[in-house]
Amino acid sequence: MTTSDPRLATLSLNQMTTRSWSVPEAVAGCVRAGIPAIGLWREPVAEIGVAAAAKAVADAGLRVSSLCRGGFLTASGDAGRAALDDNRRAIDEAAGLGTDCLVLVVGGLPGGSRDLPGARQRVADAVAELAPYAGERGVRLALEPLHPMYCADRAVLSTLGQALDLAERFPVEQVGVVVDTFHIWWDPDVWAQIARAGARIASFQVCDFLTPLPADVLLGRGMMGDGHIEFAPFRRAVEAAGYTGDTEVEIFNADVWATDPDQVLATMKQRYVDLVLEG
Amino acid sequence: MTTSDPRLATLSLNQMTTRSWSVPEAVAGCVRAGIPAIGLWREPVAEIGVAAAAKAVADAGLRVSSLCRGGFLTASGDAGRAALDDNRRAIDEAAGLGTDCLVLVVGGLPGGSRDLPGARQRVADAVAELAPYAGERGVRLALEPLHPMYCADRAVLSTLGQALDLAERFPVEQVGVVVDTFHIWWDPDVWAQIARAGARIASFQVCDFLTPLPADVLLGRGMMGDGHIEFAPFRRAVEAAGYTGDTEVEIFNADVWATDPDQVLATMKQRYVDLVLEG
Repeated sequence: MTTSDPRLATLSLNQMTTRSWSVPEAVAGCVRAGIPAIGLWREPVAEIGVAAAAKAVADAGLRVSSLCRGGFLTASGDAGRAALDDNRRAIDEAAGLGTDCLVLVVGGLPGGSRDLPGARQRVADAVAELAPYAGERGVRLALEPLHPMYCADRAVLSTLGQALDLAERFPVEQVGVVVDTFHIWWDPDVWAQIARAGARIASFQVCDFLTPLPADVLLGRGMMGDGHIEFAPFRRAVEAAGYTGDTEVEIFNADVWATDPDQVLATMKQRYVDLVLEG
Repeated sequence: MTTSDPRLATLSLNQMTTRSWSVPEAVAGCVRAGIPAIGLWREPVAEIGVAAAAKAVADAGLRVSSLCRGGFLTASGDAGRAALDDNRRAIDEAAGLGTDCLVLVVGGLPGGSRDLPGARQRVADAVAELAPYAGERGVRLALEPLHPMYCADRAVLSTLGQALDLAERFPVEQVGVVVDTFHIWWDPDVWAQIARAGARIASFQVCDFLTPLPADVLLGRGMMGDGHIEFAPFRRAVEAAGYTGDTEVEIFNADVWATDPDQVLATMKQRYVDLVLEG
């Protein structure tokens, strides 16, 4: 790869930020931009297969900072068993890609259910089932608390503290947490919980929180600097907690997706330096 | 007023649920429906004046369960002083209407600011300024934690615990909190915080959380039963905490607003009995 700017030594492109790119295209884009790591998604990996994706990344000299994503563990019965099987495959894929971090979006309320405690219990049971399997393969389950606006339909884990309450039941090498600025920036308890997280921090993801939220609230994730979050305090907090891994930029945004991906990477590098590292 | 169903003895119509109605129309609607209390909003009250609104309510034999709303206290300088003046007027209006509960939506980040701790500090300073003024007039400031999706633009108080941390700095008769199911249903700590709130609970508001959220996320508040919240545990929790006041139904929803208001009240009564009281 090209000689990197040392300030970019732990910067990672989450593949969703350049959604139109295949895995080989995103890998080549990272090389051109001097970005040393990439967070992969299962769907584009499946398009070329795990082995080919792993080879593309390795040949380019990149790291895989995470695989997105497993989870959706709140169903019961046959659907619940199918979800466990799918998560075991995701763990295998993470191992095959050479990353120790599998991000889990745990799932919302099953259709028609209002039993939030029950859904949370099924997540806990599923994590207990999957954690040893992950650990045996050198993969850590990274529980991602999602913004509370997704509690009903995507993740019944809503705060870092709640994710840690669950993660701490398991060995630290089996279950960690994701610190994603978009999801937790509003939390009055966030600094204490990042400090508490310590070695449980399996992934640090950044993007901004935009208002007004777009019609599809999944796409309210903006480029750093375009929204309301002050990033440097989060970078300093995860560092103070002992985190030395990559910082993934993960943006779901229609305007970003409509922009030339090489230009997105150029903007992302500049904003990362100005706002995450030095802000 | 008409003889009420005893099950409706503490039911209140928040005026925003029947947005097209003036104060006299909403009062008459409550009388027709046998609903004994009403939560008023400042703007429709201003259309006829505080004295006329107070007389309309009193003549009908209704209670005023709250006045919505003061707040928006995060600006500094001239705008901050103007906000304090406006809140003093809101306190006077609450007193004039015969309610001891002024709901405060505390405000989001000032335009262009990313200083969330600073905004929270200005809220605390403003509440300290207003609380004695309110107390002297027999009015309690009811701090409303809003759903975290509104943190940037409407309220930097996002959890009941955070609202209580602030409220507890003041005498209980001066500063309380609002328990609104829409805003806090997702919170893993909500039951402990309702128990902690005890006599600080100044208002209990119910409506459902809908998905997908509408394009204007302010309008995601649905009729009970149309969304994801299980209501009866919240009603039991506030009762266990000692709350004996009214349950206000406050819905912001384009479909509800397009429905005949008398029909809205009929549905609201039925859902209240089925899902809040007995669910």
